[in-house]
This record gives sequence, structure tokens and C-alpha cells, in this order.
Amino acid sequence: MDARELEAYLHAHIPLSAAMQVSAVAVDAAGVTLAAPLAPNINHRDTVFGGSASAVAILAAWSLLHARLGAEGVAARLVIQSNAMHYLLPIAGDFTARSALAEPDQWPRFLRTFARMGRARLRVTAELHADGQVAARLIGEFVALAMAAP
Amino acid sequence: MDARELEAYLHAHIPLSAAMQVSAVAVDAAGVTLAAPLAPNINHRDTVFGGSASAVAILAAWSLLHARLGAEGVAARLVIQSNAMHYLLPIAGDFTARSALAEPDQWPRFLRTFARMGRARLRVTAELHADGQVAARLIGEFVALAMAAP
Repeated sequence: MDARELEAYLHAHIPLSAAMQVSAVAVDAAGVTLAAPLAPNINHRDTVFGGSASAVAILAAWSLLHARLGAEGVAARLVIQSNAMHYLLPIAGDFTARSALAEPDQWPRFLRTFARMGRARLRVTAELHADGQVAARLIGEFVALAMAAP
Repeated sequence: MDARELEAYLHAHIPLSAAMQVSAVAVDAAGVTLAAPLAPNINHRDTVFGGSASAVAILAAWSLLHARLGAEGVAARLVIQSNAMHYLLPIAGDFTARSALAEPDQWPRFLRTFARMGRARLRVTAELHADGQVAARLIGEFVALAMAAP
């Protein structure tokens, strides 16, 4: 899955990603980078609304697991269980969200657990960048569930 | 500030609230109730996107502080510092978010600290309800900052 495919998938299936004008900048094994402009995500202070910041960070985190599982040929249902978000700086312009596995060395174990149990848990981070600075940090816990038999 | 005024304020100043079709159901000293339909907030599984759920919860939490400070005649800039969100159940239809102060008895102290220091911190919760069940819980930490002199 490349950036163009990811962006088309997000816009088609998660309409809020289109409303936030999220674009996919990069998709690789280490992380996914999404970008969003200020205008559709602005708040009453002319900075990015915290809910938009969180939503873009969650999309970046989810997209990394979605892309990596796809690359492994693993069909799973990905569910977010929890997230924590820290807002470090107000964002007064366009911003990006870059995701990464919180514990990259746990990936093989995650796949083995999923194959054996039909259920496995993994933590993903996302960092928001704006104007050359880290503006927010998210950590999310996701669970991959085996698809029901067709 | 009543529910109609809050809804108009949100739609005018935070365009994502209009994109999510958020409506204000109730505004009182104990909490703010917002509602949102599934369609603009749907994900690839036909349930509510976690980013929408978080954003509506954050709006409900912020709105309570905004309304209570307004009722006290206190002009402050409200900034979200962090939030934690737990997703308990998938939401397959319309949903509401109801906010409350995490420690209601801390309100007088919050106002005193703000008056003395020009800065005070408070935690607000929001519970998402759908189909008669609690579907998610957010806790957010906000800081109120004195407005810069005009």
C-alpha cells in the first residue's frame, strides 16, 4: 500500500479524514506520515482543535498497523482500545502526524500471538509536527482480531 | 449559555464540529451533553471512527469549562493539555457525549487559583453513550490562562 492508495482508502471509508483534508505523505514499514491543513481543523483560537489533532494522530497510528498487516498478508480487524494524547504546543498552521511502533522489536511476537490466538495487542505512537517542532504526542493501544469466518 | 448558543458557537468557530454534525442537547452546571450521528463519523467497519469519538468527547469536556467560566463571568483561555480515552464498545449508530468535572468539589479552588495566579488546571471527564450503554470514557486535563491584556 503506497501513500496514494492509503489516502484514497481513508477518504472513501472514513469521511472525517476527507473533512479534515488529510493527505498521506509517506507509508513505509517504520511509519506512516499524514498531513492536514489548518483551515478545516481550526478552533476558536485560530489554532488546531485538539479533537482534530487527536483524530489525525489516531489515523496515522491505525494506518501503520493496517499497512504492515496488509504487507504481511494478514487479514485482521483492528480495534483501538485506548489512547493518551499530550498537547505540547499550539499548532497555528498545517501539521503532520508520523506514526511508529512503540516497541518495534515486539512485531514478530505480535504476529505469532495473532496467528496462535486470533487476537494480539500492540502499541503505536504518533508525533505531531508543525513549524519544525513536536507539537503533540499520542500513544494508542490497538488489538488485532481474527476476521469471522465468511 | 444554553444549548442552542453553544451549538452555534461550536459550528461557527470549530468547523470540524459542523462536519461531525455535532448538536448540543443540554448545557447545565453539572455537564454538557452533545450528540452526533453515525454517518459523518463512520469508519471502514460501519462503526464510529475513534478519532470522531475522541473529538466529540473533547468538545463536550471543553464546552463544560467554557460554559461554567462564562457563567462565573471569568474570561480565560482554555487549553487542553492531555487526554486519555478508553474505547469500551463499538458504536454502530448515533451517540452522545456527556461531560462532568472529574472532581466537582475542586471548582472553587480552581477559580481561586485562577484569580490569584492567572493560571489553573482542572480535569474533566466525558462519557460516550450509544444504544443505552457506556461506549467510551475520556478524561482530559485543561488549563485556564488569563487573557493577555488588550
